[in-house]
Amino acid sequence: MAGRTETREATRLDATLKAVDDGLDAALSRLFDFLKIASISTDPAHKAACTQAAEWAAGELRALGFAATVHPTPGHPVVVARTDTGAPRRVLFYGHYDVQPVDPLDLWETPPFEPRLGETPDGRKTIVARGACDDKGQVLTFLEALRAFKSVGAGAPVDVTVLLEGEEECGSPNLPAFLAAHASELSADLALVCDTGMWDPKTPSITTALRGILHTELTIVGADRDLHSGLFGGAARNPIHVLASLIAEAHDASGRVTLPGFYDDVREMPAEVRQRWESLGLTAEAFLNPVGLGVAAGESDRLVIEQIQSRPTFEVNGMFGGYTGAGTKTIIPARATAKISFRLVADQDPAKIRAGFEAFAAARVPADCEAVFSWGEGARAFLVPPESPDLSRAAGALEAEWGIAPVTVGSGGSIPVVGQFKNVLGVDTLLIGFGLDDDRVHSPNEKYDLSSFHKGTRSWVRILEALA
Amino acid sequence: MAGRTETREATRLDATLKAVDDGLDAALSRLFDFLKIASISTDPAHKAACTQAAEWAAGELRALGFAATVHPTPGHPVVVARTDTGAPRRVLFYGHYDVQPVDPLDLWETPPFEPRLGETPDGRKTIVARGACDDKGQVLTFLEALRAFKSVGAGAPVDVTVLLEGEEECGSPNLPAFLAAHASELSADLALVCDTGMWDPKTPSITTALRGILHTELTIVGADRDLHSGLFGGAARNPIHVLASLIAEAHDASGRVTLPGFYDDVREMPAEVRQRWESLGLTAEAFLNPVGLGVAAGESDRLVIEQIQSRPTFEVNGMFGGYTGAGTKTIIPARATAKISFRLVADQDPAKIRAGFEAFAAARVPADCEAVFSWGEGARAFLVPPESPDLSRAAGALEAEWGIAPVTVGSGGSIPVVGQFKNVLGVDTLLIGFGLDDDRVHSPNEKYDLSSFHKGTRSWVRILEALA
Repeated sequence: MAGRTETREATRLDATLKAVDDGLDAALSRLFDFLKIASISTDPAHKAACTQAAEWAAGELRALGFAATVHPTPGHPVVVARTDTGAPRRVLFYGHYDVQPVDPLDLWETPPFEPRLGETPDGRKTIVARGACDDKGQVLTFLEALRAFKSVGAGAPVDVTVLLEGEEECGSPNLPAFLAAHASELSADLALVCDTGMWDPKTPSITTALRGILHTELTIVGADRDLHSGLFGGAARNPIHVLASLIAEAHDASGRVTLPGFYDDVREMPAEVRQRWESLGLTAEAFLNPVGLGVAAGESDRLVIEQIQSRPTFEVNGMFGGYTGAGTKTIIPARATAKISFRLVADQDPAKIRAGFEAFAAARVPADCEAVFSWGEGARAFLVPPESPDLSRAAGALEAEWGIAPVTVGSGGSIPVVGQFKNVLGVDTLLIGFGLDDDRVHSPNEKYDLSSFHKGTRSWVRILEALA
Repeated sequence: MAGRTETREATRLDATLKAVDDGLDAALSRLFDFLKIASISTDPAHKAACTQAAEWAAGELRALGFAATVHPTPGHPVVVARTDTGAPRRVLFYGHYDVQPVDPLDLWETPPFEPRLGETPDGRKTIVARGACDDKGQVLTFLEALRAFKSVGAGAPVDVTVLLEGEEECGSPNLPAFLAAHASELSADLALVCDTGMWDPKTPSITTALRGILHTELTIVGADRDLHSGLFGGAARNPIHVLASLIAEAHDASGRVTLPGFYDDVREMPAEVRQRWESLGLTAEAFLNPVGLGVAAGESDRLVIEQIQSRPTFEVNGMFGGYTGAGTKTIIPARATAKISFRLVADQDPAKIRAGFEAFAAARVPADCEAVFSWGEGARAFLVPPESPDLSRAAGALEAEWGIAPVTVGSGGSIPVVGQFKNVLGVDTLLIGFGLDDDRVHSPNEKYDLSSFHKGTRSWVRILEALA
């Protein structure tokens, strides 16, 4: 009888949600344990800590009833854990246990691997540590939902495969091969990634688009040694000047990237999407003032939200050349280097972007200098079909928890694994996360709202029920 | 009787020159002792070594019959030493005992403070060490001439005051005040500076013009923290891009500096000087190929020699911003910094150049960013009057030693003390040195030709005779 089944389901849901509420302190304690492990993947000195973090996660999963394996790779290990209850559907949950480096260390108010509770100026309670949001807080937001299901006896209403890697912060070099080698073990009906953010502290969000990414490091080489800037200055080419000109010419006065062919394959957003974005009314000031800026720097004929979500970028992440120590040194340096990344949108092809930039540089480097490139693997942009049924199910679950429909957004960020899930495993992904714009991911004093942890866990309970 | 006086003088000169030749090995040994002292003035870890170098020099001067004092300053000490024989004329010799830093250390073939003899590919014997040319080799080139005079009994035919400072490589911050405080003790008829170069290994040179110099460090400040380049990229201003544009716009396509008022006070060379320079036939390839370049980077309507000697420059000596470590980090940095120096020519005023650059930057910095300047003291350019009698005397002496008239040149480099000698002590300076373009001053594997040391010492003997 429909009524009694719904009542049993409602009762089970209520009980599970109550278990989340009752178990919050213990969950926080487990998150603190996870955060204490300094799993910085880009730094060889932290290799053992990365393995320790993987083992810790595997241990937690086994305690939740999973069969968990810590798989070695040429880099940091990958954790794969599965339940096998014979449920009609299986979801694949992806996260990463590695964290960003912490520099500059002197800007942290408390040590980055000594997690603590904090509070924002407007009174929101927070968890403060490197990885509090990206990605350990978000991973445990999901795992604690599974714990709540287990604590009321039933287990989750879907089978779950958990995939945790340890190299997301350094480009996941070993993941594509791992996915290919373990494709059958990782098969699922839907992938879930909890590494994105909410619209605001009270409004959830589902990310339906991600930008792709392409990295390069460009060095301009001039003389065969640093030169005395008096004896050679005025006649000898300065690679810093050459590189600066290259960077300056990459954008025109309207903020448009000038690299040849850069916008050829860019898909325009449908008119209704642009109208919806306009109606959101996000101004440059509102978006940028919280970080000390105020003037939108992108294409001048685009909304701020377009500049972030649907337009590609050319960005210099770091640049160095010549003398950078204290005081002065009167040299013309032999070389100068820029670390550059491109955020890509559908349907840009990383290979074509690379060719365009190499041509752009070749046309501008003086005859007696050399442009040396070192390219990373590129990742294309990602789009969720708006008509997806799982999208509707998850949206309904989020509305039930937060009292407001989630905003479906594109993210300016890139999560290459989503494209790999589609290409290698043939599975679509839902990106639902509980981070906030002021979490300071990749910066000192990273935090994660306690409300995101708590209500996010409750949200996952509802979502998994809805997906079953 | 004129004949017998000339014969006595010729005999004394010949004896003194022979003493130089006979004493070369011992002089080399003393130079090696001087070079072993790691007197890097910019590095506080070498403060004791700087004092040791000053004391060593004072000891050598006392052995030469000087009354020498090592004067403390707020920084490294200044050595002042005098002979007082009642000679009709007095010269003031200036040099510095401090040396440049050695980085990058891994490019030195042998340790920088373990002097050794070497050889160039074309067979010239060299002394290799940090400071071999700049400035210890050149200082001893002068002092060993005084030793030769002393060894034949007479002492030098002029009275000599020797002034050795220890902060030339970090901008001589304490020297102006020292000169003012010791002006009467340092009074002389003429100053001699041995810190410049020869035209080529067989052709001496007298430097009759020096460029001035002005340092600044410019930081562009954007957001109040490093930003995630996915979440903010495309909308948030990147200070590296702002700084790169500033640097790129500082020159136009013809190589001319675009800063407002930059060339207003630049004195054009007289037509005959330009004709003489043209007749020297120095090509960009000849000047730049030895350092791995080949295309003149300065104003396209100027000779290479003008670009170095008589035209001012805007030069970025170092630049840094954002993530500069290994691998990638997807940030938009909060700030970016450039260390910039201007080489000035007569009659540019450092204060006007500063004002012009600040105005240039203010006009180009976005409304939500800030340009923060840190300026050093400026030093104006220097010119020797071509009709100077001492210039003729020194030129004749050099021709006698080298068999070819010296080339009178401007140097692209800056030696601010020369302006201070004029302003504070009221004394003109002759700049005569024996360095060579391939000495690698300010670079790894610095050297000084043995021929420069030997024939340079003989040259000083002849010059001091001529000046008496």
